[in-house]
Amino acid sequence: MTQIIKYQLNESDMPRQWYNIVADMPNKPAPALHPGTGQPAGPQDFAPLFPMNLIEQEVSTQRWIDIPEPVLAIYAQWRPSPLYRARRFEQALGTPAKIYFKYEGVSPSGSHKTNTAVAQAYYNKLAGTKRITTETGAGQWGSALSYACNIFGIPLKVYMVKVSFEQKPYRKNMMQIYGAEVVPSPTNATNAGRAILAQDPNSMGSLGIAISEAVEDAAPREDTKYTLGSVLNHVLLHQTIIGLEAQKQFKMAGDYPDVVIGCCGGGSNFAGIASPFLADKFAGKQVRLVGVEPTACPTLTKGHFHYDFGDAVCTTPLMPMYTLGHDFAPAGIHAGGLRYHGMAPIISQLKKDNLIEAYAYNQIECFQDAITFARAEGIIPAPESSHAIRHVVVEAQRAKEEGKERVILFNLSGHGHFDMSAYDKYLAGAIEDVPLPQSSLDASWEKIKGLPKVA
Amino acid sequence: MTQIIKYQLNESDMPRQWYNIVADMPNKPAPALHPGTGQPAGPQDFAPLFPMNLIEQEVSTQRWIDIPEPVLAIYAQWRPSPLYRARRFEQALGTPAKIYFKYEGVSPSGSHKTNTAVAQAYYNKLAGTKRITTETGAGQWGSALSYACNIFGIPLKVYMVKVSFEQKPYRKNMMQIYGAEVVPSPTNATNAGRAILAQDPNSMGSLGIAISEAVEDAAPREDTKYTLGSVLNHVLLHQTIIGLEAQKQFKMAGDYPDVVIGCCGGGSNFAGIASPFLADKFAGKQVRLVGVEPTACPTLTKGHFHYDFGDAVCTTPLMPMYTLGHDFAPAGIHAGGLRYHGMAPIISQLKKDNLIEAYAYNQIECFQDAITFARAEGIIPAPESSHAIRHVVVEAQRAKEEGKERVILFNLSGHGHFDMSAYDKYLAGAIEDVPLPQSSLDASWEKIKGLPKVA
Repeated sequence: MTQIIKYQLNESDMPRQWYNIVADMPNKPAPALHPGTGQPAGPQDFAPLFPMNLIEQEVSTQRWIDIPEPVLAIYAQWRPSPLYRARRFEQALGTPAKIYFKYEGVSPSGSHKTNTAVAQAYYNKLAGTKRITTETGAGQWGSALSYACNIFGIPLKVYMVKVSFEQKPYRKNMMQIYGAEVVPSPTNATNAGRAILAQDPNSMGSLGIAISEAVEDAAPREDTKYTLGSVLNHVLLHQTIIGLEAQKQFKMAGDYPDVVIGCCGGGSNFAGIASPFLADKFAGKQVRLVGVEPTACPTLTKGHFHYDFGDAVCTTPLMPMYTLGHDFAPAGIHAGGLRYHGMAPIISQLKKDNLIEAYAYNQIECFQDAITFARAEGIIPAPESSHAIRHVVVEAQRAKEEGKERVILFNLSGHGHFDMSAYDKYLAGAIEDVPLPQSSLDASWEKIKGLPKVA
Repeated sequence: MTQIIKYQLNESDMPRQWYNIVADMPNKPAPALHPGTGQPAGPQDFAPLFPMNLIEQEVSTQRWIDIPEPVLAIYAQWRPSPLYRARRFEQALGTPAKIYFKYEGVSPSGSHKTNTAVAQAYYNKLAGTKRITTETGAGQWGSALSYACNIFGIPLKVYMVKVSFEQKPYRKNMMQIYGAEVVPSPTNATNAGRAILAQDPNSMGSLGIAISEAVEDAAPREDTKYTLGSVLNHVLLHQTIIGLEAQKQFKMAGDYPDVVIGCCGGGSNFAGIASPFLADKFAGKQVRLVGVEPTACPTLTKGHFHYDFGDAVCTTPLMPMYTLGHDFAPAGIHAGGLRYHGMAPIISQLKKDNLIEAYAYNQIECFQDAITFARAEGIIPAPESSHAIRHVVVEAQRAKEEGKERVILFNLSGHGHFDMSAYDKYLAGAIEDVPLPQSSLDASWEKIKGLPKVA
């Protein structure tokens, strides 16, 4: 019986500032562009969607940004989150590598999303927002924001991708328990939804469509704002508390990672754990940062660094990012949070500048490693997080082959308690890896070739 | 926005001994009786089922029992568990009462059951047990023991009540992920199972039948032992770490409870939080202890204090306890962990001696209060735990009516992440309260009248 090692910070050691990596990036992310004029989008272009205090964070180049006291007070329900040394997992893999993981599944909604949900709800409350809209795919973001909006007493409407709404009711129930209104997208209450339904009355929806609906609902209404659970700079900023805590915990452990790993959907959980370590790298420290994505949606590994829309029906500003094209339709893998066509501009720029690495894996190998992990450490990972675990195994096996000690840190971004139907299918041998044909990538790339290049 | 208050002990403050309430009870529980001879059952009568080190704990009258180091090391993954002051819940109820809760849902399997599962697996490992059997209803116990047996490398076979096996696959999946063999009970691999299937080939099983099967599988095999997740003295002992931690946390808070509340199925989670406070009561402190059960299975409130079998087909020793009769078949309420016909002898004796109180509630009112709680505190309670919450609300409302401050502590024994189908039904208005006719209680009582009375 190998002992578990937990590095638990006291509440008083919780970081009191977020780290804004933009301050230290050698090349800053290019500006978003107004979709109509093609000109750099200014704060006023975002004002219909976001309150000004969040827009200020979005464009800020200040290195450290104070976490407001009320946000810290709510974080304290589950933060600082634990850092574990996964010794039983190391043993199961027979690796000389030391594997550490930061566990974000301890939050009330069960993932890292709560970190930014609380902050966004707080800033909206401060700005007088009376109502919030958002979209959700598998539901991690929707449930985190429902939790946060409920605390601050802000009514929330969630456009939930219809296939998840119908096939995975439990995240929907969680949002309803927290008091949110949840509707299956596409709806016929928006132009975007009606346009999709006119083409295909049986459309099961997509994240891109749901974004279009949530944006259209919020933009024209003075008292309603829209929120996004990843991709944008301010969202990534709020997640940096993960890596900042991890740095303190590594000091407790008297250790330092050689490689830091996170799964990548929109990029926020990876940025959250990686950014503070990137700051060390900028200062000359040897550390590798690895983002992991599904082969079914290989944005960083097979996408193009190009301007593209954030949504499916081309209403958002153009974002400078790795993208597969805004109408790319990934296969229905169980890691619903990794099925986004684009990638955060910050992460995209870092990848472009070779400051981070990226790898893609199939879902069956990810489930397999998730079960090895669960059996060793007792925690069942979300399918998204299992992608990070897959790459941990690859690094650990390489360490074994090379006979080297290697210190690996990964972010276990959430638990899989609401994804057990996926595990049920995996255990029954009913999950397949669907190959992604190049022709499909080419087709969606073709649609965005005419949009501006990133300078 | 009201601030959450968390009282978090350091790992070094974790209690290093369990508290054995038997040492201090004014009347000790009567001995179990051998079902054949009717004579008090000695350690040797339990030897076919349990290893001798656990039997010694079962009959011990020593006040403090050391928690073995390897058990403490595993506990450290999630313990000390947090004590929260539920200020937003107080606010939602508009009560002057102060409400605290101890949260056991932070364990890897999501409930308090892990506390005893780890201890039982450890003692079995120490005793050389090569294989373990158990039963599970809704699956909280089965998944906790699967987690623990996996850590110690002991193969486990779980007899899972068939209706849960088929209708609630996710706890089954969790056990399988942890490496356990899970079979739907009744099986035709045991005499007990075959007897039931002969009467009713479509039997959906019951906890009593599953116990019979797990016992029959283990008893004749030298290398196989049986484990129980509640009821027995040693199981209640292992749970006392909950109350011992809570006492330390109340010291941090500078407060002390007027009333301590836990839901009651077999009695272990209630005993876990209540026993250390009962020790204070024995020493003259004013504190009330309240067990809460469902009206569908009202063991403490409508049962008889009498000897009865622990299982359905009358193979276990006779236990001195409050019982509804071993063939009592409760309605299919969602709090599967509260559907046991008997009650721990320790809890039964305490109730008989008026040292604790008991109340019963319908499930709809429990769901309603669980949702008020979830909305306030962000945590979705297991349906079992919602019974404790229901009584918290009653106490808080009484405090309001009386205009008194009252300090309430309850044990939130587990989260409801694997019970979302029950919430889904509740939210859809598809849950009913089924009245329990007196005739049904009379019929099952009739069956046990001829068994020995408790002296």
